[in-house]
Amino acid sequence: MGRLTLENINQHVVKAEYAVRGELAVKSEEYRAKIRKGGDTGLPFDTVVSANIGNPQQLDQKPITFFRQVLSLLENPNLLEHEDVLINSLGYKSDVVARAKWLLSNVGNVGAYSASAGVPAIKESVAKFLERRDGFAADPAHIYLSGGASSGVNTLLHVLCASPDTGILIPIPQYPLYTASLALLDATCVPYYLDEAASWGTSLETIKESYEKATSNGTDVRAIVIINPGNPTGASLPESDIRSVLEYAAEKKLVVMADEVYQTNVFVGKFTSFRQVLLTLQKENPGGKYDDVELASLHSISKGMVGECGHRGGYFDLVGFSKEVEEQIYKFVSITLCAPVIGQCIVEMMVNPPKEGEPSYELYSKEYNGILEGLKVRATALYEAFKEMEGVECGEPQGSMYLFPTITLSDKAKQAAEKDGRKPDEFYCMRMLEATGVCVVPGAGFGQKEGTLHFRTTFLAPGTDWVGRITKFHKDFMNEFR
Amino acid sequence: MGRLTLENINQHVVKAEYAVRGELAVKSEEYRAKIRKGGDTGLPFDTVVSANIGNPQQLDQKPITFFRQVLSLLENPNLLEHEDVLINSLGYKSDVVARAKWLLSNVGNVGAYSASAGVPAIKESVAKFLERRDGFAADPAHIYLSGGASSGVNTLLHVLCASPDTGILIPIPQYPLYTASLALLDATCVPYYLDEAASWGTSLETIKESYEKATSNGTDVRAIVIINPGNPTGASLPESDIRSVLEYAAEKKLVVMADEVYQTNVFVGKFTSFRQVLLTLQKENPGGKYDDVELASLHSISKGMVGECGHRGGYFDLVGFSKEVEEQIYKFVSITLCAPVIGQCIVEMMVNPPKEGEPSYELYSKEYNGILEGLKVRATALYEAFKEMEGVECGEPQGSMYLFPTITLSDKAKQAAEKDGRKPDEFYCMRMLEATGVCVVPGAGFGQKEGTLHFRTTFLAPGTDWVGRITKFHKDFMNEFR
Repeated sequence: MGRLTLENINQHVVKAEYAVRGELAVKSEEYRAKIRKGGDTGLPFDTVVSANIGNPQQLDQKPITFFRQVLSLLENPNLLEHEDVLINSLGYKSDVVARAKWLLSNVGNVGAYSASAGVPAIKESVAKFLERRDGFAADPAHIYLSGGASSGVNTLLHVLCASPDTGILIPIPQYPLYTASLALLDATCVPYYLDEAASWGTSLETIKESYEKATSNGTDVRAIVIINPGNPTGASLPESDIRSVLEYAAEKKLVVMADEVYQTNVFVGKFTSFRQVLLTLQKENPGGKYDDVELASLHSISKGMVGECGHRGGYFDLVGFSKEVEEQIYKFVSITLCAPVIGQCIVEMMVNPPKEGEPSYELYSKEYNGILEGLKVRATALYEAFKEMEGVECGEPQGSMYLFPTITLSDKAKQAAEKDGRKPDEFYCMRMLEATGVCVVPGAGFGQKEGTLHFRTTFLAPGTDWVGRITKFHKDFMNEFR
Repeated sequence: MGRLTLENINQHVVKAEYAVRGELAVKSEEYRAKIRKGGDTGLPFDTVVSANIGNPQQLDQKPITFFRQVLSLLENPNLLEHEDVLINSLGYKSDVVARAKWLLSNVGNVGAYSASAGVPAIKESVAKFLERRDGFAADPAHIYLSGGASSGVNTLLHVLCASPDTGILIPIPQYPLYTASLALLDATCVPYYLDEAASWGTSLETIKESYEKATSNGTDVRAIVIINPGNPTGASLPESDIRSVLEYAAEKKLVVMADEVYQTNVFVGKFTSFRQVLLTLQKENPGGKYDDVELASLHSISKGMVGECGHRGGYFDLVGFSKEVEEQIYKFVSITLCAPVIGQCIVEMMVNPPKEGEPSYELYSKEYNGILEGLKVRATALYEAFKEMEGVECGEPQGSMYLFPTITLSDKAKQAAEKDGRKPDEFYCMRMLEATGVCVVPGAGFGQKEGTLHFRTTFLAPGTDWVGRITKFHKDFMNEFR
């Protein structure tokens, strides 16, 4: 016997849960491999649909042409010696060539480490984007490029969490990266429930209750995480909700972590950034309590119409952090060396895409709008299907890439789940995968109010066949356990 | 005042040290920015030389053409619709096109998340490489693709370190990622000193002493890290040293972490992998003590003739870990989603480069050998310069990308350092940077025997001008403090 056992390794790792890529995902990959091998699989379906993870380009979403043309030149700058071929034979526009040259002159070589917090010129592009988006200037010195938003979350939670008593307010349901990271750091998750009846809105009353309860138990609650637009819920917060969260954060000296990776995935209402509202509040109350609020906002190339998950790019922007704390954040990111440089270049193009009048603009905007429209159409089709399903309730699609319907299961189904050693929604999702090849995530993986059951599905998969498979499975399941 | 202060944030972050990108590196970047702005800088040099970090493509090392041509096609697969243009007008060979097609058919889309532990087909390529290199078959199931070796180290140490009493044997001098990671995890670094007099070899006696001392202090020593070839020392371990380390590991049930990222950067002697030696020992002693040894071997695309640091790719391979522990490792890597997919593709090409007889082979091997030869020439030039410098002693270059000379400074210099609030080698390196624009790292950043002083410099920078600058600075420094 070797040295390491489940009992003697890091118990915080053992305790961490991450359902998005858990047992169901592993089983779905086994099915996929079986189907790929060919022959008689014995399975009642012939494709696996990974609706468990927001992975747009694994499914129907095509990459944006402008981005990928530029990347091809960054990877092989020798191609720039053949500009005529690029333009006349390969359909590259002059702004593709110009952007590649500009990036190369600022990045140097995409195969070299960049500065720890990212390429300075790219941070400047992000700052200009923030200024255009929010109407307030941004300082590149407080922008940190990261390997996706998840690496930014990891950095920030590492610095924030000082002891097991450190508490972080986390929305429930949530993206399980947060609870998994807190488990790894041995810090305390202070859950606050989102209000399903109010389109999964943020209720200040609920936040206050959670804060008070945790504080009275001796937890040092020092930050609140807001996912806006929501994952898994899709909800966009109205400005009034953001204001009240910031007011409460100012009062209780809570660091605000605004996870805004779905900021362009909005169908209903509009996205308002925490940064814009905070800077507005500071302007309205000069010298007031908002000047001290610490806000970290996160964004990513993985979602939205960019959808470049595999390239691992993103950034976070800090407002109100002290110099000495930022120095520690810098040191932490420098230990992990730097974010993937190609991912940093995609961040630059995401925040600074082709503009009206530029040669690539027409195709860019056609692709961008086509993706957004496609997501909306698929979300609506799925929503309509859910409306027809017995015991399923689902809010109207608002944004992000997910629907998170409630399911009501019979006692007989719950007993069968118990016998199977699973939570009822896990049982339901496993049966769905076995019957249809569609992989979704049980609500238990995100957290849900006691006594309620949900599942999360992306609406990224093309076509309607898989929706039909779910509908049929659901009917059979309900009949089996009636 | 906001919430966070240096006193109330995570003290393990505050305590972590990472000199490679510390004060000197930050200052050198300021100089670089100043020079870029133009005008009278007031500096006594007109270029900054970053000899502080093994970042080949920031300096003279060109990327391998085959790799980058394939990457350009992976980023823009539409180019594959113009095979004639690629081949007739752009100089792409047919094996470039074939490799890109093969990778795309296995990866899908480089913009999608891959499986958490990496693309299965790429893991198979790594397994085949391990088999060719070591003469023993490898199972892709135990191979994990990572974002550079540093992300693999982070994963493994996270799982290994269960409490502040967990001890990990770390060579001194070492790459400071190890001590920084242990500080973040609040585990115990158990240093063992390498033997400078024996070309920085590994002395089993020293390892035993360190183990015994730590164990008698109540530390649960559970792993030993070996960096082979060494960083910062460049030493390649002879097979006999590897055998004795493995024998000791088997006896004491120590997990072995073999950091082998410099395995192709070898000028003197030859690289032997820990995996090969362990599997040989197992074969020689069937059913014996070696069957239980747990070995993790790490490799990277950042070093060697590949030098693709900015793409963040690498892998680790496990031998002898239990299924339950591997499940925890899988869960941990799944929380960080996946390694950058383009970096994974470079791993594939690194372990499976063009073969003799294939169209790209000639250029590939010319580039590969040219880089290796260039490193050797530059290392030798630097070594010769060090030999001429008063109070500097340096072993003959053996490999990796670094030299790590001893410097002997006068009491007067040490007093001046103390007055300046710095360790003597930090003071020396800061003065070097201020006088020459050459950034190196003080030995203190890697650890060194009490009473000795060193600095680490890469030998990646082209030309000899910068070596001349160091020589002149050193003479002036020695005279100033005589």
